[in-house]
Amino acid sequence: MPRNVKLAVIPGDGIGPEVVAEAEKVLAAATAGSDVVFDTTHFSLGAARYLETGDTLTDADLEAIAAHDAILLGAVGGVPGDARLKDANIERGLLLKLRFELDHYVNLRPSKLYPGVPGPLADPGAIDFVVVREGTEGPYVGNGGSIRRGTPHEVANETSVNTAYGIERVVRYAFDLAERRREKITLVHKTNVLVHAGGMWQRIVDAVASEHPDVAVDYLHVDAATIFMVTNPGRFDVIVTDNLFGDILTDLAGAVTGGIGLAASGNINPDGAFPSMFEPVHGSAPDIAGQQKADPTAAILSVALLLDHLGMQDEADRVTQAVEADIAERDGSTRTTTQIGDAIAVRLQA
Amino acid sequence: MPRNVKLAVIPGDGIGPEVVAEAEKVLAAATAGSDVVFDTTHFSLGAARYLETGDTLTDADLEAIAAHDAILLGAVGGVPGDARLKDANIERGLLLKLRFELDHYVNLRPSKLYPGVPGPLADPGAIDFVVVREGTEGPYVGNGGSIRRGTPHEVANETSVNTAYGIERVVRYAFDLAERRREKITLVHKTNVLVHAGGMWQRIVDAVASEHPDVAVDYLHVDAATIFMVTNPGRFDVIVTDNLFGDILTDLAGAVTGGIGLAASGNINPDGAFPSMFEPVHGSAPDIAGQQKADPTAAILSVALLLDHLGMQDEADRVTQAVEADIAERDGSTRTTTQIGDAIAVRLQA
Ligand SMILES: CC(C)[C@H](C(=O)O)[C@@H](O)C(=O)O
Ligand SMILES: CC(C)[C@H](C(=O)O)[C@@H](O)C(=O)O
Repeated sequence: MPRNVKLAVIPGDGIGPEVVAEAEKVLAAATAGSDVVFDTTHFSLGAARYLETGDTLTDADLEAIAAHDAILLGAVGGVPGDARLKDANIERGLLLKLRFELDHYVNLRPSKLYPGVPGPLADPGAIDFVVVREGTEGPYVGNGGSIRRGTPHEVANETSVNTAYGIERVVRYAFDLAERRREKITLVHKTNVLVHAGGMWQRIVDAVASEHPDVAVDYLHVDAATIFMVTNPGRFDVIVTDNLFGDILTDLAGAVTGGIGLAASGNINPDGAFPSMFEPVHGSAPDIAGQQKADPTAAILSVALLLDHLGMQDEADRVTQAVEADIAERDGSTRTTTQIGDAIAVRLQA
Repeated sequence: MPRNVKLAVIPGDGIGPEVVAEAEKVLAAATAGSDVVFDTTHFSLGAARYLETGDTLTDADLEAIAAHDAILLGAVGGVPGDARLKDANIERGLLLKLRFELDHYVNLRPSKLYPGVPGPLADPGAIDFVVVREGTEGPYVGNGGSIRRGTPHEVANETSVNTAYGIERVVRYAFDLAERRREKITLVHKTNVLVHAGGMWQRIVDAVASEHPDVAVDYLHVDAATIFMVTNPGRFDVIVTDNLFGDILTDLAGAVTGGIGLAASGNINPDGAFPSMFEPVHGSAPDIAGQQKADPTAAILSVALLLDHLGMQDEADRVTQAVEADIAERDGSTRTTTQIGDAIAVRLQA
């Protein structure tokens, strides 16, 4: 009996549609002959849609997307400085709205230095860790405001909201993940300054740790964590951290593992109450859009995360292996977005 | 007529006293024969003092320190995990209290890759930038709290407070500094998420920029800034940013320029209403304290910033040159803290 998976695809802006096309190609190649049939719906969302209709993400959009089993997203965001987008905040109104409304409390961001990939570090060593970034709380909640805007007496506040409920569930996810990896967790926060939020993170990690005596736990302030990211990234296995610190650390992690052209991510609702969403960490890069210059590898690795999430481990592993094999043969010569996607898809047909 | 400068010295904890001893030695060597006489008072503050007396920074301490012309600080903070310090927050109660009470609104952190210094980047290029970190606002204000502490229903908030007054003054400082450097400013924030605080930063930078048409201005989200820090740090001249982002970026910057053993900083009150404070970026490193293993260079370079702040440019330059000359001759062999301090002091006597 074939199983049907309803997949919502949001190609988005800039290089989004180009990399998503390759990701879909690889998804088809990886699942051909399996008993899973993907029913795919494309959603036109992002800066282009906003400029056309004034809508960012309507209730109807959200409802339609939420009725799917999973989401694949390319990248959203218009040309920086585009005056017509001055009052749009595509990131908040679309990307973050999806993460929050679909309760994507685990923002999963693996970082691996694949053999042969050139990176900025002289002596990187083996890098293979996962950042488990909280996705629905912290300074991202949009709980801010200002008074006397535009005057010399303006005051703008931004409130980071953190709950035991929200932290415990993501910390538990991180410990479960560590059990299946090298059994090491690093909490990253800034407990000496953000004493209330940081103190709660530390207490909850300590409590969950006591149920996982086999997992080694340590703590780093976020500033110190950035140092280790460039001096000894091999020390990390699973990092668990808040929304903002996770945002910062994963871009840095992407850079040290060869660039965000390779960094994949999952916005996961582990409970399955809402569809999870998979997307490359990179943005829409409007400057190179439509030129077949974008590397679709991050989008393709996001497909591997999606397959894994859907319980299709074999297919997920095959995608990862095809990407690794492709990367191993890269010699610095330029290929188009399509050529890279084709090369990886061909390996899956073999 | 000799001029007297009242200097408050806070050696602090861990390696603090060791590196400060060398910094004072270099200060004496650099200013011998000048018409400035330093009247130095040592203040015993930090974890050790807290454990002895229960005091972190009393009103009397603060008043006494504020009566000085400048402050030199080593490092404060006890052994991590020391149960007796569980309820002390030396960082908030001492270091941040000094910065806030003495209105150190410019946290000045230069980053330079000195020739011959080994760093983690394969191809660093020339690195020479200054981070102007706001020092009295943002997420550091301590405006947080929690309810239902320790229960599954705990909520902890941390509010970042930002004012036009506070931002404008530090932005003006950054532009003035850029005028004396390579005339380039990069604002780092997270305007797409922290829209109220970020929006105000952006508007104030734009307004001040219009008075400095010769200064090139760009903007990076903090996550993207960490990428450039490892892939193209040469792109930066002056970075202006908020308290938390500046904390994170300057540790990373210290790492890419050869480690925080070299990173100096000034906590500056440019108006002169309060004494400015100079300190290495590194912490108290209790694990290597008392072993003559610490590199006093960051503390010594902090003396150069102090001299510059006091208007003693020649002496400041001589200290920097002595450090550069010392660094250029480092060959990886181990020297004690005192040996490094002595070597630099000797160059100044020559
Ligand atoms: C676009 C932006 C809102 C987003 C974030 O900050 O989470 C991005 O940087 C990311 O990491 O996915
Ligand atoms: C010790 C800590 C409070 C401090 C800070 O966060 O500012 C330190 O990291 C620094 O950068 O000087």
